[in-house]
Amino acid sequence: MLHIVGLGVSDDSIPYNIEDIIQKADIVYLEVFTSPDINTSQIRRICPTLQMAPRWLVEDGRRILEESEYKDVVLASYGDPLVATTHTELRVRAAQRGIPVNVVHGPSAITTLVGECGLHHYMMGRMATIMSEDTLLETPYMVSYRNAVLGNHTLLLLEYNQDADFFLKADVALQRLSDAEKSYRRGVFTPDRHCIVACRIGTKRQLVVSGSLSSLEGYDFGEPPHSIILTGRLHFTECDAIRVLTRCMDGPPENQTIKSIPQQMIEKYTPMIHKSIQDLPDCSNNEKLIVQNAISYIQDAQRALESGQDEVAILSIGYADGLVDALRISHGMDPKI
Amino acid sequence: MLHIVGLGVSDDSIPYNIEDIIQKADIVYLEVFTSPDINTSQIRRICPTLQMAPRWLVEDGRRILEESEYKDVVLASYGDPLVATTHTELRVRAAQRGIPVNVVHGPSAITTLVGECGLHHYMMGRMATIMSEDTLLETPYMVSYRNAVLGNHTLLLLEYNQDADFFLKADVALQRLSDAEKSYRRGVFTPDRHCIVACRIGTKRQLVVSGSLSSLEGYDFGEPPHSIILTGRLHFTECDAIRVLTRCMDGPPENQTIKSIPQQMIEKYTPMIHKSIQDLPDCSNNEKLIVQNAISYIQDAQRALESGQDEVAILSIGYADGLVDALRISHGMDPKI
Repeated sequence: MLHIVGLGVSDDSIPYNIEDIIQKADIVYLEVFTSPDINTSQIRRICPTLQMAPRWLVEDGRRILEESEYKDVVLASYGDPLVATTHTELRVRAAQRGIPVNVVHGPSAITTLVGECGLHHYMMGRMATIMSEDTLLETPYMVSYRNAVLGNHTLLLLEYNQDADFFLKADVALQRLSDAEKSYRRGVFTPDRHCIVACRIGTKRQLVVSGSLSSLEGYDFGEPPHSIILTGRLHFTECDAIRVLTRCMDGPPENQTIKSIPQQMIEKYTPMIHKSIQDLPDCSNNEKLIVQNAISYIQDAQRALESGQDEVAILSIGYADGLVDALRISHGMDPKI
Repeated sequence: MLHIVGLGVSDDSIPYNIEDIIQKADIVYLEVFTSPDINTSQIRRICPTLQMAPRWLVEDGRRILEESEYKDVVLASYGDPLVATTHTELRVRAAQRGIPVNVVHGPSAITTLVGECGLHHYMMGRMATIMSEDTLLETPYMVSYRNAVLGNHTLLLLEYNQDADFFLKADVALQRLSDAEKSYRRGVFTPDRHCIVACRIGTKRQLVVSGSLSSLEGYDFGEPPHSIILTGRLHFTECDAIRVLTRCMDGPPENQTIKSIPQQMIEKYTPMIHKSIQDLPDCSNNEKLIVQNAISYIQDAQRALESGQDEVAILSIGYADGLVDALRISHGMDPKI
């Protein structure tokens, strides 16, 4: 039998019945390559015969599966074990071979982090991981952008590489996000943007720091692990929680929003098209009809934006612009777009 | 001191050190109004003097806070306690009054559900709750749509109301989502859409059923609690896991995608504008310039869509349509839009 058990995020959140499972087991493996070794003292105390499971052993899996066929094998890991895809894959392979699998869930860093930062869980958008290589920032940036436009919070996990004994630190990650802003320019990681940095969550040296990106810059967050949450639209109870539960550098802002691309487009094109109309020479009746159409599509765009129909808003403003530019071109003027 | 402790999702996932905390405590409260009473036998066994905390007691909070000032008080609840905003608010108020708070995290239904369904956690978009009132389906529908367009999975929790002893069941919720599709028409809950229904997760009677909406229709999922996951784009390892870990009615489809509104718009308008151009009478040179512009903006729209610049794609196709419609109107023809 294979037991896949989660140790949670702190030394004392290890699930109740794990002691019993471990004492009856023939082999107990501990893996610390999906997450750092910060919550394992309790299991080390319970199980003196603990064996470390290197990455290849779990990813390859064959030895663990063979042993599980005739022995009681425990694979223990940080957090909730099935958050790591490696463990789910091992579980599936075991089931395919007819090996019984017992999963014991543990408290996950994902829910723990959000709770310790005082945020509402149902406002969390998709999460992302920031890697240290320069080329890989598009995903976390775009995930953060999409969440921010909808007012959602974004949990950004930071790269951990046990083989290289490397954990990306929050100060480096924040600097990289600011740099990414200069490339992608969607207003996601501007200096005034509010973030929370969660350090060593679950340990006795837990620290949560919050503030604008510029006030978090250069902060010494201490030893890893660190994570970052880009906050979205904050409920007033979230603001209260951030003030009380975190070391506030400044803020939190209640009305932090980010202008969506559709909103930016409507704001840019509306005055531009009106100006184009004013610049037109005397118009024929058919041409006046075109101008009237353009004006009503500008109004449609505004209404669509207000009712959340972003795509219709853009289509309408683009259409209005096309109508007016056709008039300009037919009068020998340059189009405005 | 106030201890806010999570009991996890199953009777045996209760954290290790809770027994110790409970035995030393003066008062132990158990709340079962944020979630149903499915994982409390262990704490009831440990603590014979357990008191039930009704909703008003926790929401009002004053008695618990007063008691916590001079006694050791435990508030125990399902899952990871800080996922419920009620508990976070109580924690914040305690901290504001200078009462020490000890949080013990438990395994949350959120990560447990995703893991038990074999899905990758970093592909989970924002979650939503389905309420039984008819008017409140816009949020879960739109949250699901936005996730689906990006290929993300959506966890849909179902209403629980302890006061009314009511738990929304998955078969009713699925029917309501199909009905919502008829109103919102974004292709999110069509009969072929793949979903997973997770029933009684963490209990001995756990059941996970997967399949297209139409094959899940009329399935008897048994006693609540139930939850639904609308799957997004599935990785092949997720497909393997779904096949092995769930009761598969059909599927899972590896390439399930949903056409975004921008994609639908480009597909609809591109042939329509080309047809409009063909229908035009003989054109002047300036008018030919307008047609050339329209054609190149149609191409721009396609390119923008392919590179993920959805907003630019819509703006371009709308602009092309406006250019051509202006020509039509100036020739006394009706616009096409």
